[in-house]
Amino acid sequence: MDAIKTAGVEIVYSTLLRKRESTDADPDVPDDEINDPATEEIFTSWAIFILIALLIGSLWTSYYLQQKRIRTVHETIISIFSGMLVGLIIRISPGHFIQEHVSFSYSYFFNLLLPPIILNSGYELHQANFFRNFATILSFAIIGTFLAAIILGVILFVWTSLGLEGVNISLLDAISVGAALSATDPVTILSIFNAYKVDPKLYTIIFGESLLNDAICIVMFETAQKFSGEAFKISSLFKGIGMFLMTFTISLLIGTIVGFTTALVLKHSHVRRFPQIESCLVLLFAYASYFFSNGCHMSGIVSLLFCGITLKHYAHYNMSRRTQIAIKYIFQLLAQLSENFIFIYLGLSLFTEVELIFKPVLIIVTAVAVCASRWVAVFPISKVINMVYRRRVPYNHPVVDEIPNNYQMMLFWAGLRGAVGVALAAGLTGEHANSLKATVLVVVVLTVIVFGGTTARMLEILGIRTGVVEESQSDDEFDIEANFRERERTRKRTTGVYSGGSSDDVRSRRSSYHDEDDDNNTEGYSDGESDTSDLPPMSSRRQSVAMNSLKRSETSSSSLSGILSRSVDEHARWFQEFDDQVLKPVLLDSAPTEQSPQGSNR
Amino acid sequence: MDAIKTAGVEIVYSTLLRKRESTDADPDVPDDEINDPATEEIFTSWAIFILIALLIGSLWTSYYLQQKRIRTVHETIISIFSGMLVGLIIRISPGHFIQEHVSFSYSYFFNLLLPPIILNSGYELHQANFFRNFATILSFAIIGTFLAAIILGVILFVWTSLGLEGVNISLLDAISVGAALSATDPVTILSIFNAYKVDPKLYTIIFGESLLNDAICIVMFETAQKFSGEAFKISSLFKGIGMFLMTFTISLLIGTIVGFTTALVLKHSHVRRFPQIESCLVLLFAYASYFFSNGCHMSGIVSLLFCGITLKHYAHYNMSRRTQIAIKYIFQLLAQLSENFIFIYLGLSLFTEVELIFKPVLIIVTAVAVCASRWVAVFPISKVINMVYRRRVPYNHPVVDEIPNNYQMMLFWAGLRGAVGVALAAGLTGEHANSLKATVLVVVVLTVIVFGGTTARMLEILGIRTGVVEESQSDDEFDIEANFRERERTRKRTTGVYSGGSSDDVRSRRSSYHDEDDDNNTEGYSDGESDTSDLPPMSSRRQSVAMNSLKRSETSSSSLSGILSRSVDEHARWFQEFDDQVLKPVLLDSAPTEQSPQGSNR
Repeated sequence: MDAIKTAGVEIVYSTLLRKRESTDADPDVPDDEINDPATEEIFTSWAIFILIALLIGSLWTSYYLQQKRIRTVHETIISIFSGMLVGLIIRISPGHFIQEHVSFSYSYFFNLLLPPIILNSGYELHQANFFRNFATILSFAIIGTFLAAIILGVILFVWTSLGLEGVNISLLDAISVGAALSATDPVTILSIFNAYKVDPKLYTIIFGESLLNDAICIVMFETAQKFSGEAFKISSLFKGIGMFLMTFTISLLIGTIVGFTTALVLKHSHVRRFPQIESCLVLLFAYASYFFSNGCHMSGIVSLLFCGITLKHYAHYNMSRRTQIAIKYIFQLLAQLSENFIFIYLGLSLFTEVELIFKPVLIIVTAVAVCASRWVAVFPISKVINMVYRRRVPYNHPVVDEIPNNYQMMLFWAGLRGAVGVALAAGLTGEHANSLKATVLVVVVLTVIVFGGTTARMLEILGIRTGVVEESQSDDEFDIEANFRERERTRKRTTGVYSGGSSDDVRSRRSSYHDEDDDNNTEGYSDGESDTSDLPPMSSRRQSVAMNSLKRSETSSSSLSGILSRSVDEHARWFQEFDDQVLKPVLLDSAPTEQSPQGSNR
Repeated sequence: MDAIKTAGVEIVYSTLLRKRESTDADPDVPDDEINDPATEEIFTSWAIFILIALLIGSLWTSYYLQQKRIRTVHETIISIFSGMLVGLIIRISPGHFIQEHVSFSYSYFFNLLLPPIILNSGYELHQANFFRNFATILSFAIIGTFLAAIILGVILFVWTSLGLEGVNISLLDAISVGAALSATDPVTILSIFNAYKVDPKLYTIIFGESLLNDAICIVMFETAQKFSGEAFKISSLFKGIGMFLMTFTISLLIGTIVGFTTALVLKHSHVRRFPQIESCLVLLFAYASYFFSNGCHMSGIVSLLFCGITLKHYAHYNMSRRTQIAIKYIFQLLAQLSENFIFIYLGLSLFTEVELIFKPVLIIVTAVAVCASRWVAVFPISKVINMVYRRRVPYNHPVVDEIPNNYQMMLFWAGLRGAVGVALAAGLTGEHANSLKATVLVVVVLTVIVFGGTTARMLEILGIRTGVVEESQSDDEFDIEANFRERERTRKRTTGVYSGGSSDDVRSRRSSYHDEDDDNNTEGYSDGESDTSDLPPMSSRRQSVAMNSLKRSETSSSSLSGILSRSVDEHARWFQEFDDQVLKPVLLDSAPTEQSPQGSNR
């Protein structure tokens, strides 16, 4: 019956508007009616050209901003606004072809745009840092996101039950929206953090949280949708949690197994003699883990993330040098293009998605609820984590918070919502789906603009350590300007003063150095662009300088930091030994150099 | 009326088969009916996973074949057969979701798969070789393709007029099919030629012809489709030729202008300080030329090809070293993936395109007609070209054919049809469209299997020079095995003998060396994989070795070849001077090193 209704609606549409040319992927419709490839091709070309032009524009602005050292306006915000501008133009101009081709498709999002970002994140991850803070990250990602989604859902349900705007949704739908709107954006805030070289520990926690959190929101959303139509029971809550944990574990295993397989294949074959084939294979294996996992109703994001981590940890050392470089560049380039694309898409969708219904009050309520739920997800959990860590400090030592107050505030501020939410919301069904979609879209754009636009200022206000030499760019060897920079760096270094820092800093800084060595050359102490001294004045900026001397003098016996790191590392040690004595000999072709993160930690 | 009919057909389909879930891009249909993102997502994931698995399989086979030095079976044929196998399995298995998602979409083909191949071809092109043979290439590409399409069209028209199989098409439709089936494939034959390191001149002619010929077929096809419905007139023939020439020129200009712009932007900015942004911008500029050109009803292929050439000739020198490497690898990787994808797609389509109607006799007639039309396109034109060149040789010198008989035969053999034809045929409309599409698909697959599978043997039979050191792989510096190879090479070199060759060889080999220098480092004499000596025994294989000494002793006064090359170069000289004295100073940041192709030619 529904199908007939659909078809009936179509008759009206096709006779009146003749818009059916866009359904070239639809094999049910006879070709002689639909397939006008010439027209189709032309309009697709224009749509893609517009997107490419927007991409060029936002990348160029990004370059200009970096060149002029303007760091308050961020490239993602430029992307969103340029997308909105062009969306507006397309909306008011006659014709619907281009409008249809540039509108947000969650299918493209999940299959084309998201994977490169996740893969690159996994590949570029500071592994030592990530696993050292794994417990903290998981607490925020799992418990925090769960709390946030439930609270947001409940607020939404209560508000809509009042019936002020004629929107009336079920609790499960409300929780679905809550889940969609709890996915934080791993892009904007981290590129700002990268630009400012923020303290690696805070960086890692936010990075890890926003990455895992996407996966968790997707699983929560899908779980909620599965229960759609059933009455809400407490038992289904536990069932949902069980399903979630199972999904997470299996996805993690899929990713890791694919990573292991790639390492073994590279080790036991001579593919490295054909670097072109080798790079294709590595890329394809990674993508295969994503789509296989998705196909099995698991979380592709989790699989891809851990596949990327495993690839970097093992397979990387079995590749030819050419493939190492090619893979790194390709992942970076695809990720950067996808990120910009997504924000342009978001801006565009505000105007090109014709069927959206905007409810102003609902949007305001949701925006406030998003902040409230983020508040609940960050502060109580931080307090619990601090308590747990405090108990592990020996009695006669001064108490240091694992997550100090300014970090908590920054974590709250980092809660801007991302495109994953919009893509999830595209899957909402039911009477009020279009209102909810519009709400999600607007709230996401609002949080990106408000929180993203003020992150730089917040770093300053909260006095968060910036200018930390965090990651070596191992690509300096190919840089025309490298020599020039090297000279600059040497000049600046002689004027630097070391001003000390909390004991946490020492630990986190050390772990950051370990990962530096993990990059594939030993000249890893050069810090990409050393223009950190040109940053706006900030509390602890001067710390960025005297790091090399620090590293060399640092020993594991340095009193407080040593005890703390030992106590935290205790749990990771068994894995490290297992890794060094079993996994690496099996998976690696030749052992990595002595400077590898694990090697230097023993 | 047609729309209503369509919708009526839809009612039947949707009620019976419930297949409409695949139309997620269709904004006309209410969302609550169609958008089941979970199911949709799962099936898309499986479809993509299958394609990725096939890609991995064919790349792995390709590695295996190369490793075992089996060169008679080529990876494209593996790709087609594996595609066919999986297509068959999908066809006979229940359910239609995956079948719909993996079927051939010309939109993906033109917007996603084709551009990387063309761009990489333009970027990797041996410029000196290409422009030295430009007249020959254009003759084959324009006149040859035009002749082939007309002859093929007429044969098809005459055959179908007999009405033996109930297929009855107009002359214009027949010529459209002729145009679609005249697009030769630039992938298979050239990768075989690459593996065998075939004489650069023959390589360049076939390469240039098959590249340009795609563009020409597309323009011809679209021109023919524009006249569709009108009566055939002689005047429309001239109009068509005029339109074609205009399209070609404007497309060439668009590509060149975009290339120039990129070079200027890179020169006059400091983007090279941000290599990540720089690589994205170069890629985007190139793609912009393609889609802009397509959007303007011009030929995107021609634009992209010349954009790639201009980028390599000018913009390349203004990039940071990191971007130079990144761009090269990314173009190569994308091209390789696309190529394999296309052939898998072709194989799949044979079984997954449910609406195709196969007419055995029509297919046989078309296959024979394709050979006949290729024959006409190659041999008469070769004779004319030989005549023209012969008149330019001074009276008392021995006559040497510009295109000797074995080259002509190889040109004929290189006429396997490619995916462009299938993609064009997807645009056919009318009563017998499905029969024609099926015919084109089968004939393309047949020619790839028959001609592609026998190319290696033909090279041997025709005694064509192989094992020519043709292109330096400037990436050796990153290769784990490079040192091993270097030793191998040195060993082999000492045993090599130079066995001479025709005067043509000297010229073409010299030009090949010029382009070798065009690569971006001065260690350009190393020949990627030097396993040429492990090729099956062939007539002039031993020539591959003593090239370095030859190059050094070669002077422009070497009697016959000097005269010949001077006479051919005469026409190119004005451009070269213009290039050196006007374009390069304007477009380049710093003059390229003295070993540049143009530099050493002066």
